[in-house]
Amino acid sequence: MTTDLSALHRRHFLAGGTVAAFGLAGPASAQAPAAGSGEPAKALPSYVAWKDADAFVVHSNQTLETKRDRIGSGIVTPTDRLFIRNNVNPPSDAIVADRDAWRVEIAGVTQPRTLTLGELKRMGLTSVATVLQCSGNGRKYMQDSLQPGQKISGTPWTVGAAGCVIWTGVPLRAVVDALGGPVQGAKFVTGTGGEDLPAGLKPKDVMVERSVPLSTLDTVLLAWELNGEPIPLAHGGPLRMIVPGFSGVNNVKYVKAVALTEQETEAKIQATSYRMHGVGEKGAPGQPSIWEQPVRSWITAPLGAGASGSTVVTGVAFGGMNAVARVEVSADGGKTWVEAPLVGPDLGRYAWRLFALRMDLPAGSHLLASRATDAMGNVQPEDTPPNGGGYSYNGWRGPAVPFEAA
Amino acid sequence: MTTDLSALHRRHFLAGGTVAAFGLAGPASAQAPAAGSGEPAKALPSYVAWKDADAFVVHSNQTLETKRDRIGSGIVTPTDRLFIRNNVNPPSDAIVADRDAWRVEIAGVTQPRTLTLGELKRMGLTSVATVLQCSGNGRKYMQDSLQPGQKISGTPWTVGAAGCVIWTGVPLRAVVDALGGPVQGAKFVTGTGGEDLPAGLKPKDVMVERSVPLSTLDTVLLAWELNGEPIPLAHGGPLRMIVPGFSGVNNVKYVKAVALTEQETEAKIQATSYRMHGVGEKGAPGQPSIWEQPVRSWITAPLGAGASGSTVVTGVAFGGMNAVARVEVSADGGKTWVEAPLVGPDLGRYAWRLFALRMDLPAGSHLLASRATDAMGNVQPEDTPPNGGGYSYNGWRGPAVPFEAA
Repeated sequence: MTTDLSALHRRHFLAGGTVAAFGLAGPASAQAPAAGSGEPAKALPSYVAWKDADAFVVHSNQTLETKRDRIGSGIVTPTDRLFIRNNVNPPSDAIVADRDAWRVEIAGVTQPRTLTLGELKRMGLTSVATVLQCSGNGRKYMQDSLQPGQKISGTPWTVGAAGCVIWTGVPLRAVVDALGGPVQGAKFVTGTGGEDLPAGLKPKDVMVERSVPLSTLDTVLLAWELNGEPIPLAHGGPLRMIVPGFSGVNNVKYVKAVALTEQETEAKIQATSYRMHGVGEKGAPGQPSIWEQPVRSWITAPLGAGASGSTVVTGVAFGGMNAVARVEVSADGGKTWVEAPLVGPDLGRYAWRLFALRMDLPAGSHLLASRATDAMGNVQPEDTPPNGGGYSYNGWRGPAVPFEAA
Repeated sequence: MTTDLSALHRRHFLAGGTVAAFGLAGPASAQAPAAGSGEPAKALPSYVAWKDADAFVVHSNQTLETKRDRIGSGIVTPTDRLFIRNNVNPPSDAIVADRDAWRVEIAGVTQPRTLTLGELKRMGLTSVATVLQCSGNGRKYMQDSLQPGQKISGTPWTVGAAGCVIWTGVPLRAVVDALGGPVQGAKFVTGTGGEDLPAGLKPKDVMVERSVPLSTLDTVLLAWELNGEPIPLAHGGPLRMIVPGFSGVNNVKYVKAVALTEQETEAKIQATSYRMHGVGEKGAPGQPSIWEQPVRSWITAPLGAGASGSTVVTGVAFGGMNAVARVEVSADGGKTWVEAPLVGPDLGRYAWRLFALRMDLPAGSHLLASRATDAMGNVQPEDTPPNGGGYSYNGWRGPAVPFEAA
């Protein structure tokens, strides 16, 4: 099962500048290529000072990536290890001082109204487990595969801009029905975030307002709890719009308005950002929006180096809108595959599953990879062609990880 | 839907000495009857100083009950709000300084061996969500219904000696198979805790050693993670034997030996404690052991007092060894019942389910109750006859909770 690194994989590692770490780091210090091996940890920004500092690569004040070796095997990602990605700085924490007083305007219904969070809590309750994942998670693998002269901007996330968490709130459907149902012609659910917008810029250029298809009406939640606690400000409390199966940006934080609309919002973050287009091209409204997440998986252990012999290879797999049907694992960089058992609780179609495969790994270099298939038969490709925004990477090749067995 | 409190329920409240709180406390301060309303909070013992002090009623250093209004609606109980019940003081935290070095002796197999936790981690991995519940949870309801002269000793738990959590570890079956399988004649799985035993007492009188039927061999876990983190010392880390569906005492903490045995252990905690017998009688080996948990449920909100009108009544329900099939809710102390939807992720047969029912509650006094039915058709009884140890209460009457709608 010993294997050479493939040429493609070697390129990733050399491009990442972390080749020195390969084969030398022990399990405790093993990181994903972009996870900052060898770099001193940056301090956490003050608004997330309550998080576990050791669990993160701090790319910037608004982008914190969970280290690959801290994703763990507990299925539900502890909130203090959940990644952070903000498009605009979070508002003042004054908005979580009296949570039940938070107001959200509901429009595009027969009887539009502004409701407080306290009122929402009296209208219904449900709970859902979802993979919350930045649309650009895995962007680094695209950035590393570009031709000379090409460029993809954005945070070089590897696998850690994702977590599986439990949200509790009111079904949007219950709210809409209580207000007389959708207006005629509604085609989108449009949520508006409560960010304080920077002065001197056009609001449309910076506001966080996203539209998703009306087909989500029966799955969207207006959520006030994350993992059994009031949602922290850093994760969108007091109220967040959760669109199960859709990538992170669609889950609008501090949501202050929800409207059923005929058109998508004209906010830049919808109109031209988070669109699927070629490298070097500009985003435009006609292009596909970054909505549903594709099937994806990655290995979480072992990483780096360890003993040869019996080894439990673990990881996470999810299907976006669909449940995971199966996962295969390779220890030779994708030449041969073995089906890996899905283990532990199944938290529903929008959650990730844990997989765990016991393998006998002889001494030598191994390249561990995982490949998931969702319930619709979609299989992870070997690689995902780069796109201009570096969105929706779901290849199995990028997150393949070396393991040196001694 | 306005109702008088039933005579039985009134007796509970008067006996609990908390009748003054009824109808006066707002939702924020509303507690279960035994949850210490009006009493100043006791400080947390130092070994659990990391827990959320506001979430507990501290009965003693070894018995901390989660307040009913802090059970929440997140399905998975956050570890910092999970109840504590120890039979013996926890060992020194030196045992969690080097977790992988922890040793557990495996006996009653063809090739008995002592394994380190580090070795266990290379043998397999799975995960399970279980309701962890003290065998005496609900004992207060039995204590309150005794005849003059009768007595049941033990912590007066109401509903808060329980939580639903996720364990990760190796299946005991994988360990046993790797060591050649069970010896002939084995009938029990016997786990021994790593407590430091008090000097001057016979070890058999104080040791925590429990035997469960060998039929659990395919579900028992040797777990090192709780809710995605290494198990805290206070909850049995570095290694705990988890017996899904079985009451708390069977889930041996700091497990240092697991043996497949022909006989049950003769330790007092097995031989004469945790046995089902009449009030005033002594425990003895021939009586049923407190093993599988019966079907149970309780309301978690609303509690105390609040506005009339649309109200979401929530709670938790579990079936011990069986999944929950349905839950009914009553707002009139059990005269009429309405089926309540089960909401949110289903974490498997050993976990609890969340239920949530929107009701219109007119101004006045209501007595909220829930009644669960498991997949085998077992229904919660109205009350559970008292037994000598105050174990396995599962009536719907005891945890019925008043709600004053204004």
